[in-house]
Amino acid sequence: MVSKNQKKLIKSLYQKKYRKQHGLFVAEGKKVIKELLAADLKLHSLFTLEVGIFDVSTTLEYDITEEELKQISFLTTPQVALAVFHIPEVKKTNPNGLVLALDDIRDPGNLGTIIRLCDWFGIQDLVCSLQTVDCYNPKVIQATMGSITRVNISYVNLQDFLTLESPNSRIFGTFMNGNSIYTEKLPKDAIVIMGNEANGISEDIQNLIKDRITIPQFGSDQKTESLNVATATAIVLSEFRRS
Amino acid sequence: MVSKNQKKLIKSLYQKKYRKQHGLFVAEGKKVIKELLAADLKLHSLFTLEVGIFDVSTTLEYDITEEELKQISFLTTPQVALAVFHIPEVKKTNPNGLVLALDDIRDPGNLGTIIRLCDWFGIQDLVCSLQTVDCYNPKVIQATMGSITRVNISYVNLQDFLTLESPNSRIFGTFMNGNSIYTEKLPKDAIVIMGNEANGISEDIQNLIKDRITIPQFGSDQKTESLNVATATAIVLSEFRRS
Repeated sequence: MVSKNQKKLIKSLYQKKYRKQHGLFVAEGKKVIKELLAADLKLHSLFTLEVGIFDVSTTLEYDITEEELKQISFLTTPQVALAVFHIPEVKKTNPNGLVLALDDIRDPGNLGTIIRLCDWFGIQDLVCSLQTVDCYNPKVIQATMGSITRVNISYVNLQDFLTLESPNSRIFGTFMNGNSIYTEKLPKDAIVIMGNEANGISEDIQNLIKDRITIPQFGSDQKTESLNVATATAIVLSEFRRS
Repeated sequence: MVSKNQKKLIKSLYQKKYRKQHGLFVAEGKKVIKELLAADLKLHSLFTLEVGIFDVSTTLEYDITEEELKQISFLTTPQVALAVFHIPEVKKTNPNGLVLALDDIRDPGNLGTIIRLCDWFGIQDLVCSLQTVDCYNPKVIQATMGSITRVNISYVNLQDFLTLESPNSRIFGTFMNGNSIYTEKLPKDAIVIMGNEANGISEDIQNLIKDRITIPQFGSDQKTESLNVATATAIVLSEFRRS
């Protein structure tokens, strides 16, 4: 059963303010919860229709009904369980290697997909501007499919990060009019910046980018305005890794 | 104003059965409607809050209220207009060049993103299995951002298409255990098959694939199960075009 206070806590965690305040976030579904547990994330509480399917301390586990799950779930079709986890500490960004930086990505689905891409391409550090959607937003958590446990995600003032913390890194940004990613020599160590869904990379950040790259468009009828930011990220990371 | 019969017609077009029966589909928003009009798609009727913003025959244009738009829109936040278009005729697939084939893609957002990718990479023909989500589904139409007018999309029995209509084409499919797309020589003329979100490429179709390719995974901790099908398509099409 779920107490009134637990319900209140869980509902509050759909808001970033309260996630920050409590240091907690919500994950749903067997697969995602199992991945988070396997990654040694600290469990706060677990609400499940089937007690015993997860290897957790029984003091943190609550047997609930479908009706109760519906009340606390944010999914249209609630799955078998909902868990509350402690938000892990962020490790310091490693300035070596390939770092992906996001300048105000707003869509949770896009951020989730990008986190999965980082995991696939072995990108350890994902740096997000302060206006980027929170990675502990429940929609992001569901979209990452557990990848969030294998990528170190930090939220920073992007301008400060680029100028103060990584002054020696080569900084790449994607634009409509840069050098082709297919011919440009792409280094192993670099920061790659992807911009906002509607407005691209902000002006302040643009000024810090020396290497402007572009994904070439094909076909005679070049009317497509742009690629979705998640698919563009996929293509760019693939190019950096293949070279 | 919207008549009762018009309302009924529009509502019915959210179902594939009625789209097929009437040969009509719905598009919403200024940008998408403008792109469809610019591509010479035949307009059936237009319902708008601002008469005159589109260059259309006044006999097809209906001035409506926000309340009425809410009643006919399928969007959570209805935009300025909703249009009903005639479904255009499908052209015959050109067996030369790069053809993308989808084996049971079910998510409208994924199909929409893939259509945009085809447009970006100059893929003229997109061939879909009969179980693939309908490209005139309103969610697909919104996700394509007008790209749907520049890609020829046909729904076929995929097995017949591969064996009877394209017996000489090289057929590529993405798998977890194929040859690396980074080292495999990728030809200009080919059919590339992407599989279902959960189950990948079906067994019947797998048997027809001679060239099994894979997107290499990086990093020591190779636990990511798979990429989202739209991001995988982005990477694969990019590789075919760059080579």
